[in-house]
Amino acid sequence: MYKLFLDIFDGILKNLITKNLNMGETMSDLKAMNELNEAFANRKDQLYKQKEEGRKVFGLFCSFVPIELILAANGIPVGLCGGKDTTIPAAEEDLPRNLCPLIKSSYGFKKTKSCPYFEAADIVIGETTCDGKKKMFELMEKMIPMHVMHLPHFRDERSAKLWLDEVKDLKKMIEEITGNEITEEKLKEAIDKVNKMRKLFYKIYKLRAKTPTPIKGTEALRLFQLAYLLDIDTLIPILEKLVKELEEKVEKGEGYEGKRILISGCPMVAGNTKIVDIIEEVGGVVVGEESCTGTRQFENLVEGYDLEKLAERYFKIPCACIFKNDNRIKRIKELVKELNADGVVYYTLQYCHTFNVEGARVEEELKKEGIPIIRIETDYSESDKEQLKTRLEAFIEMI
Amino acid sequence: MYKLFLDIFDGILKNLITKNLNMGETMSDLKAMNELNEAFANRKDQLYKQKEEGRKVFGLFCSFVPIELILAANGIPVGLCGGKDTTIPAAEEDLPRNLCPLIKSSYGFKKTKSCPYFEAADIVIGETTCDGKKKMFELMEKMIPMHVMHLPHFRDERSAKLWLDEVKDLKKMIEEITGNEITEEKLKEAIDKVNKMRKLFYKIYKLRAKTPTPIKGTEALRLFQLAYLLDIDTLIPILEKLVKELEEKVEKGEGYEGKRILISGCPMVAGNTKIVDIIEEVGGVVVGEESCTGTRQFENLVEGYDLEKLAERYFKIPCACIFKNDNRIKRIKELVKELNADGVVYYTLQYCHTFNVEGARVEEELKKEGIPIIRIETDYSESDKEQLKTRLEAFIEMI
Ligand code: SF4
Ligand code: SF4
Ligand code: SF4
Ligand code: SF4
Repeated sequence: MYKLFLDIFDGILKNLITKNLNMGETMSDLKAMNELNEAFANRKDQLYKQKEEGRKVFGLFCSFVPIELILAANGIPVGLCGGKDTTIPAAEEDLPRNLCPLIKSSYGFKKTKSCPYFEAADIVIGETTCDGKKKMFELMEKMIPMHVMHLPHFRDERSAKLWLDEVKDLKKMIEEITGNEITEEKLKEAIDKVNKMRKLFYKIYKLRAKTPTPIKGTEALRLFQLAYLLDIDTLIPILEKLVKELEEKVEKGEGYEGKRILISGCPMVAGNTKIVDIIEEVGGVVVGEESCTGTRQFENLVEGYDLEKLAERYFKIPCACIFKNDNRIKRIKELVKELNADGVVYYTLQYCHTFNVEGARVEEELKKEGIPIIRIETDYSESDKEQLKTRLEAFIEMI
Repeated sequence: MYKLFLDIFDGILKNLITKNLNMGETMSDLKAMNELNEAFANRKDQLYKQKEEGRKVFGLFCSFVPIELILAANGIPVGLCGGKDTTIPAAEEDLPRNLCPLIKSSYGFKKTKSCPYFEAADIVIGETTCDGKKKMFELMEKMIPMHVMHLPHFRDERSAKLWLDEVKDLKKMIEEITGNEITEEKLKEAIDKVNKMRKLFYKIYKLRAKTPTPIKGTEALRLFQLAYLLDIDTLIPILEKLVKELEEKVEKGEGYEGKRILISGCPMVAGNTKIVDIIEEVGGVVVGEESCTGTRQFENLVEGYDLEKLAERYFKIPCACIFKNDNRIKRIKELVKELNADGVVYYTLQYCHTFNVEGARVEEELKKEGIPIIRIETDYSESDKEQLKTRLEAFIEMI
């Protein structure tokens, strides 16, 4: 059944991977990065083969979903956030124009059936993070089965309890969909595996803290973006190689110099590289991302093997959707120090109220410590590129 | 102490009431409406006198806050939502431009200290309804003490439990601030009083369902707006008189005819009358408001005298911030029938994601039943007035 589907879509998909997702191979001096690109080029075929073997595909839109549960049930988690504006016009037939481009792009990919990963998904796991996504999920449900997790606004005990119950419900749902029981052993295995991946990302982060920094921001971003799409068993050995290569570069003192930038804010998902491209064009080098394509993707290990510990790790993610998200602000300041950043580019996707309003507090707190910060609000279009270039160039010269 | 404050601010306040809040007296053929206007003209003095007597003032931004608890502790609830764009420039120094005007206007009133009601408030009770308000409250806390209630996204049992706990916390906080214990008896008294007010609003709604409708939409809106500001003991006798007057008008067949419009969507708070003004200028007559300046303000009584029943009533409010808010859509359809409406004007404040996205579902469901609907997204400025007039005129002619 999937074979037929594959044959029909094959031409379209090939096209999409390079065109719509703008993920064409670029040659890197890092062998691991070239392997990553190759793995991505093969990912679609691999995914549909895995589906044919009976594995279920779970589409995700957020870092809050505990992928360990999916892996423990032999399911496949795939990040579906859209980063291209090509599908936005279709989305705007149903959704308001004044809505975050990530939400519109994602919805549009499903509506136009133009993302092979989305088409592979058996079910989507949503969450109540921001208003836009929460309400968009109500419309998306007409196109694909949905399971929405209730993520509470607060970070108190009663919210933690509710979240744990939601994680338990998620486990049940995944067991039902896959037909596989999530045994203690399977869960332990999955937790260890995902922790292993996280530790490798941590190592890469520490290496990026060196001067010169051994990997460009554009390549690091690509790594974080593809990590949401690749099979974790393919990804881990690539990360191991990358760590080795970066260690060698650091030892030799090879790498990139320039004004060291920490990006902080909304995720930059596959297809969206605008700001990092510009920063590195105008003399900056991105050394870290306080973002869901960055630290929020891997920070904090799961510190035990039960559902409580699993829920706990995810509950700690400092997303701006949380009321009184002081831990995030604290963490940004730490990251500036750890990464020896010269300045912070605070990145908000247009109409993202949570990150946008929280930006005021971040700015205030960083300024108090004399850390330069520039706040950028943008979408997926090319129209503001020149203006952003001028502003970022001035910022980088100034710091 | 308050006397001095009053003397200093008196001139400014007088000015504000008519200028900034745009609430100058307008003569009505309804005696009760003239009494309402008079009560409002006296409200500021009354409020500061009540403060001087030691009563505490609680500022509110949402229909979800159970005012019964405030009244039971001899406190005074005052709605502080801003409806004028005059304070928006000051707010935009801290908040993004791309944010709902209600949020910016409210924040701006506090920042510029230009609303006598806000200045009277001892504490503000916020809630986690929408992203914009939730995050704005974090900034507002620097200007005034805040207590934020955790309103969960879902409407399941575990959310109901969390909400009940939040209502219990609110009770404690109010007891502490006022120094008054909320006894069973006091609570019963307050519940009865607020229910009485709700029943009077229900009666007015039923009377508005008649053809001709005995009160203009502009006057009804004024009533809902001032209800958030007036003392409930002043308001109830005015509502009783109004019911009688409207009954008499209905008996005599007096009132307003024209295309009967139900408004549905975001609240239109004091200072904001733009859309209703336009609708009634171009030949429509507003017969109902599915809104927090309308049905959501009074529908559903508290059906018992304990905190459980109190929490339950508020938990049922069908605000678009709820994930899967099907009850709202059902209720809109019922209201169209009950009020004999010819069409629905779906009203969204700019950048309000929840009501905006939910609008797509409302539109779809109403169209299925052949109910005409027009969707309007606007802010507090005058700049789109002519355009809105053209659109609304065409809609009203068409239906
Ligand atoms: S930024 Fe927040 S809502 Fe967005 S993916 Fe990350 S955790 Fe989820
Ligand atoms: S960027 Fe902001 S508005 Fe967009 S999906 Fe993430 S949290 Fe929501
Ligand atoms: S519309 Fe919703 S958030 Fe706004 S006042 Fe009403 S209940 Fe509160
Ligand atoms: S109108 Fe919408 S965005 Fe504005 S305060 Fe109310 S719920 Fe929030």
